[in-house]
Amino acid sequence: MKQKYLIGVDLGGTNTVFGIVDSEGNIICEDSIKTQSFPRIEDFVEACAQSVEPLIERVGGKELIGGMGIGAPNANYYTGSIAEAPNLPWKGEVPLAKLLSERLHLNVVMTNDANAAAMGEMIYGAARGMRHFIVITLGTGVGSGIVIDGKLVYGSDGFAGELGHLIIDRSADARLCGCGRRGCLETYCSARGIVRTAQEQMEAGCPTLLSGVNELSALEIYKAAKQGDAVAIETFRRTGELLGAACADITTFCSPEAYIFFGGPMRSHEFIMPHIIKTYNAQVMPIYRNRCKFLLSELMDKNAAVLGAAALMA
Amino acid sequence: MKQKYLIGVDLGGTNTVFGIVDSEGNIICEDSIKTQSFPRIEDFVEACAQSVEPLIERVGGKELIGGMGIGAPNANYYTGSIAEAPNLPWKGEVPLAKLLSERLHLNVVMTNDANAAAMGEMIYGAARGMRHFIVITLGTGVGSGIVIDGKLVYGSDGFAGELGHLIIDRSADARLCGCGRRGCLETYCSARGIVRTAQEQMEAGCPTLLSGVNELSALEIYKAAKQGDAVAIETFRRTGELLGAACADITTFCSPEAYIFFGGPMRSHEFIMPHIIKTYNAQVMPIYRNRCKFLLSELMDKNAAVLGAAALMA
Repeated sequence: MKQKYLIGVDLGGTNTVFGIVDSEGNIICEDSIKTQSFPRIEDFVEACAQSVEPLIERVGGKELIGGMGIGAPNANYYTGSIAEAPNLPWKGEVPLAKLLSERLHLNVVMTNDANAAAMGEMIYGAARGMRHFIVITLGTGVGSGIVIDGKLVYGSDGFAGELGHLIIDRSADARLCGCGRRGCLETYCSARGIVRTAQEQMEAGCPTLLSGVNELSALEIYKAAKQGDAVAIETFRRTGELLGAACADITTFCSPEAYIFFGGPMRSHEFIMPHIIKTYNAQVMPIYRNRCKFLLSELMDKNAAVLGAAALMA
Repeated sequence: MKQKYLIGVDLGGTNTVFGIVDSEGNIICEDSIKTQSFPRIEDFVEACAQSVEPLIERVGGKELIGGMGIGAPNANYYTGSIAEAPNLPWKGEVPLAKLLSERLHLNVVMTNDANAAAMGEMIYGAARGMRHFIVITLGTGVGSGIVIDGKLVYGSDGFAGELGHLIIDRSADARLCGCGRRGCLETYCSARGIVRTAQEQMEAGCPTLLSGVNELSALEIYKAAKQGDAVAIETFRRTGELLGAACADITTFCSPEAYIFFGGPMRSHEFIMPHIIKTYNAQVMPIYRNRCKFLLSELMDKNAAVLGAAALMA
């Protein structure tokens, strides 16, 4: 194949990172710009071009580039647009894929971060060789990318795959979610949700090393768990149980070969994963029991967002 | 196209029905055999052949047949086998698609009833022209067929699409399901589940016309609802609300264009459907609100099972 490189773009609220990726998933070279410095989308597109064109020249020119993939918040694969992303400077619907494609004369596709993460795992990570799997990303929120028969599920409108917003708690006092509803998986299993699970135990008076921590975070809870702290361990147990219960429901939908977990809180996988697996197999419909793999992302120590974006074009 | 007909086979616990279907979805001719009369699978295959071959001759011979689709309980699309179906006479795993294909020299595919129903709607029914939709069948159980991008979702093992077994009630006293777990959608929204919802109100002392009914059924509840019976109307309201809540969760998965409902209890759609729609739009994540269609099967007055099976080959 002549086109030996792909461009991956990780468009975030702070930085927009460009990477040239080879067929083995190595990032050959990269650059970045400050997203917030370009309140006009035209200026942002021009800045992207000026950042990425030197990278393209460095690896041998445009003929060697198979295309550009972008992972961005609120991005829609079908329209190639970003719509009303709260942390990005542009209002309304921004047809970024088209604008960049016209400026760079490259094929450009765009999707949201979690979908890009799923493609990254399939092409370069833990899902190599799989055709049916789900990536669940734990971070500020809980995102998901669903792959069925080797293809990302975008749904009728490009908004499929919001498994962080499965209702996992239907009680009246379930936690309130940023989406305006109560009981979403995200309110319990995002980094913030995990912190809250610890806080609730602290407020109930459970003794814990975490009382001495200034700013509670998933990482601080992890450190406490490593020291045997009961509240920290219990926090991850509950997190794992809810993820396992959610996966048991999700399996009735598409019976995946594997669930792959990604994101900061999964640094604590030793405390979370056993409870995901145990709860899943206890709660899933018997025909599915003990048949599904639960894996950790293989891209957590790499630039997963850039690799995932590049993988969209693979 | 030379091959103008498809064969649809509805393999049920009592009868196995064969139909020759034209491209408009008309069943040109049909025949049936008694499934239970053939405890040996070899005898069943031979009886199928002897039933279907005269039909094939009647429409002009095998050259005009595009293939045979079979809808059967516990059928697996990938393996072409039926495994341990409780109401069928054969034990173990029966490779029926292969056996019939070898005997008849036709392409044969097989899947479960709800998946066949989904294909039937896409080719001949309410989902014509759609590429992303879900069919939910209410009957003895609650089944589902999920279509994404024009293709049925079979999952990694052929067992995807069991949405009747989404856990809709996580409380400790949720209804026990045939699958061994508690709180499955099926325990509330199958024909039996609906009857139980009425019974629970009767046991609580609610006055109702249903007290005079000998054998309570979804049909009797429908008749009572038509007469303004409060228990009957409340029963369908609860049924619709649970279906709407389940669909709200399902949408986060694949964001379908439409949900299509099929089966006996949906004869009462005037009492159920408004509550499905109202609950769905109240509970679904805001980005999906008021975007999804809720439709009644267009095959309920036809031989949906035969048409759905034929549609597998379309």
